[in-house]
Amino acid sequence: MTAERLIYLPLGGAGEIGMNAYVYGYGAPDKERLILVDIGVTFPDMESSPGVDLIMADISWLKARLNRLEAVFITHAHEDHVGAVGHLYEALGMPKIHARAFTANIARGKMAEYGIKEDAVSVASPWPATVQAGPFKVGFAPISHSIPESSALVIDYPDGRVVHSGDFKRDLTPLVGEPFDDDMWTSIAKPGVKALICDSTNVFSRNEGRSEASVGPEIEKLVSSAPGMMVATTFASNVARVRTLAEAGVRAGRSVCLMGRAMKRMVEASVTTGVLTDFPAVVQPEDAVSIPRENLMLIVTGSQGERRAASAQLSRGKFLGLELKEGDTFLFSSKTIPGNEKGVIQIINSFSEKGVDVVDDADGHYHVSGHANRPDIEMMHNLIDPQMVIPMHGEHRHLREHAKLAESLGRAGIVAVNGTMLDLSGNRPTVAGYVETGRSYLDGRVMIGALDGIVRDRIRMALNGHVTLTVILDEEDAPLGDPWCDIRGLAETGRSNAALQEVLEEDLSQFLGRADAKTLRDDAKLDTALRRVVRQTTKDEIGKKPEVTVVVSRLSA
Amino acid sequence: MTAERLIYLPLGGAGEIGMNAYVYGYGAPDKERLILVDIGVTFPDMESSPGVDLIMADISWLKARLNRLEAVFITHAHEDHVGAVGHLYEALGMPKIHARAFTANIARGKMAEYGIKEDAVSVASPWPATVQAGPFKVGFAPISHSIPESSALVIDYPDGRVVHSGDFKRDLTPLVGEPFDDDMWTSIAKPGVKALICDSTNVFSRNEGRSEASVGPEIEKLVSSAPGMMVATTFASNVARVRTLAEAGVRAGRSVCLMGRAMKRMVEASVTTGVLTDFPAVVQPEDAVSIPRENLMLIVTGSQGERRAASAQLSRGKFLGLELKEGDTFLFSSKTIPGNEKGVIQIINSFSEKGVDVVDDADGHYHVSGHANRPDIEMMHNLIDPQMVIPMHGEHRHLREHAKLAESLGRAGIVAVNGTMLDLSGNRPTVAGYVETGRSYLDGRVMIGALDGIVRDRIRMALNGHVTLTVILDEEDAPLGDPWCDIRGLAETGRSNAALQEVLEEDLSQFLGRADAKTLRDDAKLDTALRRVVRQTTKDEIGKKPEVTVVVSRLSA
Repeated sequence: MTAERLIYLPLGGAGEIGMNAYVYGYGAPDKERLILVDIGVTFPDMESSPGVDLIMADISWLKARLNRLEAVFITHAHEDHVGAVGHLYEALGMPKIHARAFTANIARGKMAEYGIKEDAVSVASPWPATVQAGPFKVGFAPISHSIPESSALVIDYPDGRVVHSGDFKRDLTPLVGEPFDDDMWTSIAKPGVKALICDSTNVFSRNEGRSEASVGPEIEKLVSSAPGMMVATTFASNVARVRTLAEAGVRAGRSVCLMGRAMKRMVEASVTTGVLTDFPAVVQPEDAVSIPRENLMLIVTGSQGERRAASAQLSRGKFLGLELKEGDTFLFSSKTIPGNEKGVIQIINSFSEKGVDVVDDADGHYHVSGHANRPDIEMMHNLIDPQMVIPMHGEHRHLREHAKLAESLGRAGIVAVNGTMLDLSGNRPTVAGYVETGRSYLDGRVMIGALDGIVRDRIRMALNGHVTLTVILDEEDAPLGDPWCDIRGLAETGRSNAALQEVLEEDLSQFLGRADAKTLRDDAKLDTALRRVVRQTTKDEIGKKPEVTVVVSRLSA
Repeated sequence: MTAERLIYLPLGGAGEIGMNAYVYGYGAPDKERLILVDIGVTFPDMESSPGVDLIMADISWLKARLNRLEAVFITHAHEDHVGAVGHLYEALGMPKIHARAFTANIARGKMAEYGIKEDAVSVASPWPATVQAGPFKVGFAPISHSIPESSALVIDYPDGRVVHSGDFKRDLTPLVGEPFDDDMWTSIAKPGVKALICDSTNVFSRNEGRSEASVGPEIEKLVSSAPGMMVATTFASNVARVRTLAEAGVRAGRSVCLMGRAMKRMVEASVTTGVLTDFPAVVQPEDAVSIPRENLMLIVTGSQGERRAASAQLSRGKFLGLELKEGDTFLFSSKTIPGNEKGVIQIINSFSEKGVDVVDDADGHYHVSGHANRPDIEMMHNLIDPQMVIPMHGEHRHLREHAKLAESLGRAGIVAVNGTMLDLSGNRPTVAGYVETGRSYLDGRVMIGALDGIVRDRIRMALNGHVTLTVILDEEDAPLGDPWCDIRGLAETGRSNAALQEVLEEDLSQFLGRADAKTLRDDAKLDTALRRVVRQTTKDEIGKKPEVTVVVSRLSA
């Protein structure tokens, strides 16, 4: 006989920050009933995923077990937690999706793009309410983060309870949404908690985190003293911050204008779902144009330097009729996520060229993180007092440090990266197996695998350039006319000071002239030989070995 | 009559950090005799310059005036100051190159790759010695930075003196090379200085800079307490730091091994030129293998995450027979230059997977900058007391802030980005004109222009994928056989669940079947029409519009 067990399997989010997707299962081995916590995306970059639109976890493992999947739970509405819900809903077998009202509003918006009806998402009430999903009873326990209605999940299974922290910080004055509630957590911990699966993002930040409320006075000071137009950017989903910025604008006698789709979408969702009841009146961009600049405050998207967002647009010139100039002030009420530095710096320099004063968070006045720092993580461990701690939501270095922290506090900790299936049933977590995981790319409208070779081919063309070569052979396998080359992404002339295209065509002609009948007859052989000529000649001429497409057309007799 | 004037023209380095190239000229307008200060490179990235090997200033303006170029002066041996000297020597008309001994050693190494003889570079003695170059008398005034023998240039012209700071910091205990010398600068300033052309890199750093000597004790503490193998990376050119690291190793009873070509090259140049006389004995990697790990210290290249440097190699596995493991320590005695974060973080995570403890400079214990912070820049302004300050070596934001600082201290300041020719003859700098500037790419073995479209084509292929389509038409312009497509970097199947290649070929066949004689006869028209079919079908199938190469072959009668 095989006893029932509780398993944990991250498919995304463990060993990276992004595309969160965590599976929990309970039952006899390989018969566990499953739930999925979060289904997020991560963003492509030119370095590793050029041309890709979105990246999400490879859910093949789940797809092979859809009959065991009970439901999906979404902790909060950040893209790395909810972003794939529309793209993967069908692939997941159209499961029941559970989320709190604000998160559900955002999820429904994403699903609507695929024509999925609203009732696919059930709105969950907060803890102590729970949702039954197979052997699990799941409660959405409000926890402070940087977006409304973030929740940790209290996951009860027949033998006990685990707590999945979601993204969190310990904020007693988060301004929007529920404060961190020590008493609630004490009562949740009371029956005993088997495992805390816990956010690791800021485990290297040694000081206690600061409250969202702490940035208000600084922002207000800045906004009221700015001489010209005031423009601020922050994460659109940080609705509390957006309101703080808007209120600072109003207090300084400025009309407030929101710019950027995400900004409007988030405020709208907050108002619709009732998490925000007192957002100041705003003006539309078309009306803002006629307001004196010293009486205007823009709150805009694009804090991470995204090229098409409002911040970047404004840095390049006029956007929706508005243009910044000397004497205006631009505030980054945000931090730059590693990897986005270049885009952000480019915006700062463009504003500098316009004479706009840019204020960033170098001194920590205008932004606070949404994640628990090390002392707050410790506090959470102690509050929940679980038997074991499973670090999640972090790169390997964060998970490792967090596991060490857990051990140092006297609890079992383990590093489990994507694909590591843990058995949490015993007194310590044990590895139950490893599962093939990876990344799926949304590319245009198609899902492709990160390892399909498609993106690798693109990267190669970007690094090496591309040559198309065409040869026509007649019925006797003799070249008909001259070979023809098209070069793309390669220098036009090289060592011999003649056009590369001509040198290539000449060398190919010569090769064909002396090629033996056997080579000319054999498609594969000919292809290889022609390719080699192109690569060698190009290397000799300009010092690069290009990608080559060989087209040999044979006229049939 | 036209009076003689002094001009300043940055071709690179002003409005960016990298590829420094500053022209000074003296004489009647458009007849000025010229000198070039520094000729550096900057590094490509996948985002904007995939496949490119090196980036340097476009020197077209100088190339059109080679008969007026007197000489080139190199302030120090960092790549962004000396890196292009070999690549552009011939294009610059093989001018006389002047540099101090260590810099000359490095420059000669680069020029040797082009077969240029050693005597192309003259070794200059330090100030008060000077080099005559047309109307200029140029002195290499030792100044502290983060590489041996860095120099500011004291540039005397018939009507006065300007000081080009080069890269500098105010370090009284730089460990290697000359300390910052207040007395020397006071005496240089004494006759009156027209203009200070000044490093702007750290103008936003508000605290006084720290000395190279300050990191030694912290490094020693870390190295002596590390349990397993100790590995440290830093900028290879920071020879003082390399020695500090090596000495810490020796004091902790460890054998020291240098890894990475640049590391060896820099230490070798330092010893050869006498700037370093007391470097500890080192062991070779092949001997290091047999030394117990707790008695070993590696000093390695790759502090910026470069994929092929020693740090990255070690993070991936065995390198030159050595492999790190649990209990070893890896130190970044460096800061991460913006844009390099992802590569560095990847290394840290790879080491984390091996159980290696990574220590970085988050707390400022193990690295100091080589550039003057704001208070030190102020001190330099006051020490030189020039009539005007021209900020250089900075992005636009740095130049603007530095010019403001100069004005606030009561001196004329001006933002002059690449291509801005300043006339420094009057009491304030004035803009004498704008010159077309830009970037040249070393691509393989060929120089191409940044705006030639070559790299743009590569980026497009990386973002959009590529389709080659071949059609053969007979003597009557009728298609011979079916059109044929090759797809590269695109999903293989899309909406219709058939192979994209087949759908494309089918749609192209249909198009050709109904195309009128006029279209089939006209190469340009046919090309456009076929391209449109490919792009539209691909868009319908997979949601992307690819780059297309159309090959129409016509069999002649």
